[in-house]
Amino acid sequence: MDIRPPRRKGVQSRGGEETVADIHASRALLPEGWARDVTVTLGEDGRIAGVRSGDRAPAGADILLPAPANLHSHAFQRAMAGRTEARSGARDSFWTWRALMYRFLDRLTPEQVEAIAAQVQVEMLEAGYAAVGEFHYLHHQPDGTPYDDLAEMSGRIAAAARTTGIGLTLLPVLYVQGGIDGRALEGGQRRFGNDLDRFARLCEGARAALCRLPGDAVPGIAPHSLRAVPPPVLADAVAAHGEGPIHIHVAEQTAEVDEIEAAWGARPVEWLLTTQPVDALWCLIHATHMTPPEVEEMAATGATAGLCPVTEANLGDGIFDGARFLEAGGRFGVGSDSNVAIGLAAELRQLEYSQRLRDRSRAVLADADRSTGRVLYEGACGGGARALGRDAGAIREGAWADLVALDGDALALAGLDGDALLDGWIFAGDDRVVADVWSAGRHVVGAGRHHARDAVERRFRDAMRQLAE
Amino acid sequence: MDIRPPRRKGVQSRGGEETVADIHASRALLPEGWARDVTVTLGEDGRIAGVRSGDRAPAGADILLPAPANLHSHAFQRAMAGRTEARSGARDSFWTWRALMYRFLDRLTPEQVEAIAAQVQVEMLEAGYAAVGEFHYLHHQPDGTPYDDLAEMSGRIAAAARTTGIGLTLLPVLYVQGGIDGRALEGGQRRFGNDLDRFARLCEGARAALCRLPGDAVPGIAPHSLRAVPPPVLADAVAAHGEGPIHIHVAEQTAEVDEIEAAWGARPVEWLLTTQPVDALWCLIHATHMTPPEVEEMAATGATAGLCPVTEANLGDGIFDGARFLEAGGRFGVGSDSNVAIGLAAELRQLEYSQRLRDRSRAVLADADRSTGRVLYEGACGGGARALGRDAGAIREGAWADLVALDGDALALAGLDGDALLDGWIFAGDDRVVADVWSAGRHVVGAGRHHARDAVERRFRDAMRQLAE
Repeated sequence: MDIRPPRRKGVQSRGGEETVADIHASRALLPEGWARDVTVTLGEDGRIAGVRSGDRAPAGADILLPAPANLHSHAFQRAMAGRTEARSGARDSFWTWRALMYRFLDRLTPEQVEAIAAQVQVEMLEAGYAAVGEFHYLHHQPDGTPYDDLAEMSGRIAAAARTTGIGLTLLPVLYVQGGIDGRALEGGQRRFGNDLDRFARLCEGARAALCRLPGDAVPGIAPHSLRAVPPPVLADAVAAHGEGPIHIHVAEQTAEVDEIEAAWGARPVEWLLTTQPVDALWCLIHATHMTPPEVEEMAATGATAGLCPVTEANLGDGIFDGARFLEAGGRFGVGSDSNVAIGLAAELRQLEYSQRLRDRSRAVLADADRSTGRVLYEGACGGGARALGRDAGAIREGAWADLVALDGDALALAGLDGDALLDGWIFAGDDRVVADVWSAGRHVVGAGRHHARDAVERRFRDAMRQLAE
Repeated sequence: MDIRPPRRKGVQSRGGEETVADIHASRALLPEGWARDVTVTLGEDGRIAGVRSGDRAPAGADILLPAPANLHSHAFQRAMAGRTEARSGARDSFWTWRALMYRFLDRLTPEQVEAIAAQVQVEMLEAGYAAVGEFHYLHHQPDGTPYDDLAEMSGRIAAAARTTGIGLTLLPVLYVQGGIDGRALEGGQRRFGNDLDRFARLCEGARAALCRLPGDAVPGIAPHSLRAVPPPVLADAVAAHGEGPIHIHVAEQTAEVDEIEAAWGARPVEWLLTTQPVDALWCLIHATHMTPPEVEEMAATGATAGLCPVTEANLGDGIFDGARFLEAGGRFGVGSDSNVAIGLAAELRQLEYSQRLRDRSRAVLADADRSTGRVLYEGACGGGARALGRDAGAIREGAWADLVALDGDALALAGLDGDALLDGWIFAGDDRVVADVWSAGRHVVGAGRHHARDAVERRFRDAMRQLAE
């Protein structure tokens, strides 16, 4: 790792060039609630070595929170932001957008993918995320031929994480067919395809790439969707996988729900829950279109709902039944998916606002003890960590030190305290209140800026220029 | 006016200390579409003295757009941002939020209102708005006694505009009763109340305050709502008003729709359109809950729909039928209303995203010739100017020079051109891409910062500290 602590703002830490440092905060969100004058000690291994409160914090010390993971990203799609908002036909939809996306990815090189992924990760870290689940499906050359190194593209995602210091859960995607009728992959899809054998080798290569990262990197798998993976292949892939996270896109679009129901006699989430061993290792991405019984049954499995509120709004997917899912004890996290815009406050805000607009109500996801912002934030921390197989999500001894410090002088937080600090950030603020971020103890953002932003941005701009040629 | 040109970034202007200046832009959105190498000449009177294209722009010149007006603001509510997102009962709604708001405003002094309004205006200008329609209802002392100067509070809003240089359309609110049953004003509402005579005197005082502002300030009136103004009083107020803008809250909440329909046999917008001379001078704020015939009839009047997408999401109001309204030729503008968050890109994005989530479709408000972002942006410019009685909304000779320059180096705009520049700003960017803003020729924002931000923010923080005591 070439990460050195950047110049600090707000949060006071001691320890100089040593690996172990103390972070002092005037206020911190601990598992048992808000505490004042908290000192968090970072261990050499990137984990939290100790937490104590009551020490007098130095003047100017900020607000310390656990930093959530961004549980769903397709990094390369960041390069399409702003390019798909005109009409491409009489009625635009997810499917016309997907056609544009396929044309776009026809040209991406490994170098460009690494440059784009690094930029995305820098923006995520600056937004307050400590880790990312990269749902990675761009494996091969444009005509479908594997690269000499089968895991070349997975290696590029890992290389980007090495540059940025983000905590990476890499989820190589299994993509077998072009639709539930078993048709062959075509056009842009040819870059995604593998049979189960080649997928196993690709995952091995991806694991090897993760070995060059710090110990918090996690390997997982992502059967792309019920469209792209036939049931027997899905069952085999899951059985072969062992202990890591399993992510799958499901029930994002009503057309997909209708197609699965017509073909298999069950709705996608219903089918998944009755045929697969869905448990707390699983993350069901989107799960937008569920019936009330599906919502309750999914909540009972312990699987995480991988919500991507900004992308789901951008793609016109629909509104997740959040109130019912939380009521049933469900776990969720958030992801930036298409990366059309990368924000943490923005994702949580859009999640709640969509609920409010549907229900014509306020504070929909709040509970009796916690404000809307706190329910959203603690949900994203807990669910994101679980979905990524990451021992994190709370400020407690032994967990990875995934931390975010908010600038206590930020105007959006002026005069606020307790849960209202989170409400102020999420509903009245944006990423500009983020001062510092640590990912498994790596201090990657200081004074709101990633330490390698300039170099990463330069390479991203170069890649974008090449793509425009 | 004590406004001096701040240091420039990007947009090149000549003219030094003289009032007349040339603004050069590499790309500009003119009434006839996108143009390259555009020079806009500012007249001494704050109007655009000339527009020509084809001159070679200096290197680094940015993207020039008309700057829209923010057509609906209750400035003082900015002080509540982040403080109302916890549950106050079993089920939170607009009405529980309103109760909190009333309690809050019990304490506001004129000095605090001026400080808060100035902060709000600075944030609006930095977001890319050139003007604001302040729907101003906080007139009296907490117990309902008028201040010695009846228009004291209106004067404070005008004084804030004098400090910030924003274009002000001041809409003193007529608020007569506590509900359609004619009940008296209670609690926080006592600060709002006037009969028609006193309201006329208050409007005179407000006009006098506007005379101390530059010539682009506009007086209007705002009968608060059908709840707060009995029909005969509304008719008299409208008849007495003459030529300026008339704004009214209508059909924001289903409870209000039900109440009016039960009492008067017509839905609120329906009632307004059949009993009042609604025309292009009118701005119907929210108009969220309309039947399809109401949507079409409202569009035909030429009245502006005053949409407040972020606040309407925050308050759980519901989703405006934007696609049908535009299809019918309706005009809209946007406002930040409660000012829970002040953004221009954010309002337009939320407007479109709510449509997409409801319709499960993309690019809902785009048309065959213009991208989503351009339809949203040109709509907000044209509708906002009309609703505020402001001769602006496009870059054309003779109009007020309400202009915004985007930073051509902003990452959110990298590699984009034409309509996609607006899509990039609105869907992938935020206010950070705004470099310069002129309001009727006053260059108030440069390098993304308002020239008086530090002083204004200091006074705002002082006011917030006093309110917390």
